[in-house]
Amino acid sequence: MQLLKDRIRKDGKIKSGDVLKVDSFLNHQMDIKLFEEIGKEFKRRFSDVSINKILTIEASGIGIACIVAQYFDVPVVFAKKSKTKNIAGDVYTTKVESFTHGKVYDIMVAKEFLGAGDKVLLIDDFLANGKALEGLAAVVKDSGAELVGAGIVIEKGFQPGGDRLRADGIRVESLAIVESMDEKTGSIRFRGDE
Amino acid sequence: MQLLKDRIRKDGKIKSGDVLKVDSFLNHQMDIKLFEEIGKEFKRRFSDVSINKILTIEASGIGIACIVAQYFDVPVVFAKKSKTKNIAGDVYTTKVESFTHGKVYDIMVAKEFLGAGDKVLLIDDFLANGKALEGLAAVVKDSGAELVGAGIVIEKGFQPGGDRLRADGIRVESLAIVESMDEKTGSIRFRGDE
Repeated sequence: MQLLKDRIRKDGKIKSGDVLKVDSFLNHQMDIKLFEEIGKEFKRRFSDVSINKILTIEASGIGIACIVAQYFDVPVVFAKKSKTKNIAGDVYTTKVESFTHGKVYDIMVAKEFLGAGDKVLLIDDFLANGKALEGLAAVVKDSGAELVGAGIVIEKGFQPGGDRLRADGIRVESLAIVESMDEKTGSIRFRGDE
Repeated sequence: MQLLKDRIRKDGKIKSGDVLKVDSFLNHQMDIKLFEEIGKEFKRRFSDVSINKILTIEASGIGIACIVAQYFDVPVVFAKKSKTKNIAGDVYTTKVESFTHGKVYDIMVAKEFLGAGDKVLLIDDFLANGKALEGLAAVVKDSGAELVGAGIVIEKGFQPGGDRLRADGIRVESLAIVESMDEKTGSIRFRGDE
């Protein structure tokens, strides 16, 4: 998605430790006009399949998922990251290792909101090591729902998550796949670039 | 907002400890069509003021804020709840006591996304004790931005947050104000009801 790649090149900041900061438009401040274009593009890419629910994970997936959902005309469910008083009763749960936060956490989805008959599209902002997406896929499998695919805004192609998930048979559509980035020069190479 | 009140009466679940569960449409599973109506209503209520940014807090405020933002044509910033590797540099921060989670946490907003000249509308799903909203208001004040008002989907009118914030001079518009609810009968009375 050229608009997105251009924006990442313009406003993304490369930090040490393979960190790509896009918090001016994607995951801290959120450019809703860009999210609408992202929604249109996911709808185009997944136009051949039927989905009735979008599943994402708090926090930075939620805003994108809600705008994307408008183009599919479906509700969104977000997996929560820690047990609160307000999630009572039966939940699907799995453990996820976070490289960004440097810890293991539980994700959970109430059983009443996911189950057999659901056709689920996963949406998230980033795919790097793929642990969050694997967790979401595990929750979908547990629920008996069908995992139709995963729509990712930015994939770090030099980290193993995307390739592993595709090898597992999951349809992953990433709108920008970063093949390499150079902290010194600020240059970014995307998959598909000449 | 009658549509919202009807939905709360239909799908809300009253639990012990003054908990109103609306996770089937508001803050776990999210009904995006309802969010669009919420967005229109906030735009109607705040049609007399100029805003250029919406500020919310993770996680359950984000989805609503993003849809509401479409009606104001502004970006959204969400306050983060814990320091991660990816928030580096200068942030506005304040402490917030959470009754739901039973702990104190830090919220933070990167300084580059909020500052003098910004006219800010706060958006959140719930207002009860008002601690999260107070924290957001403190962040706006610290930043030098103007706090135009706060748009809340559900206010618990029997808890002190809303009245305290209004007494502090903050314009709070709540789409449904629950005056009382009865766990045994499941009945809910809203402010403004006969």
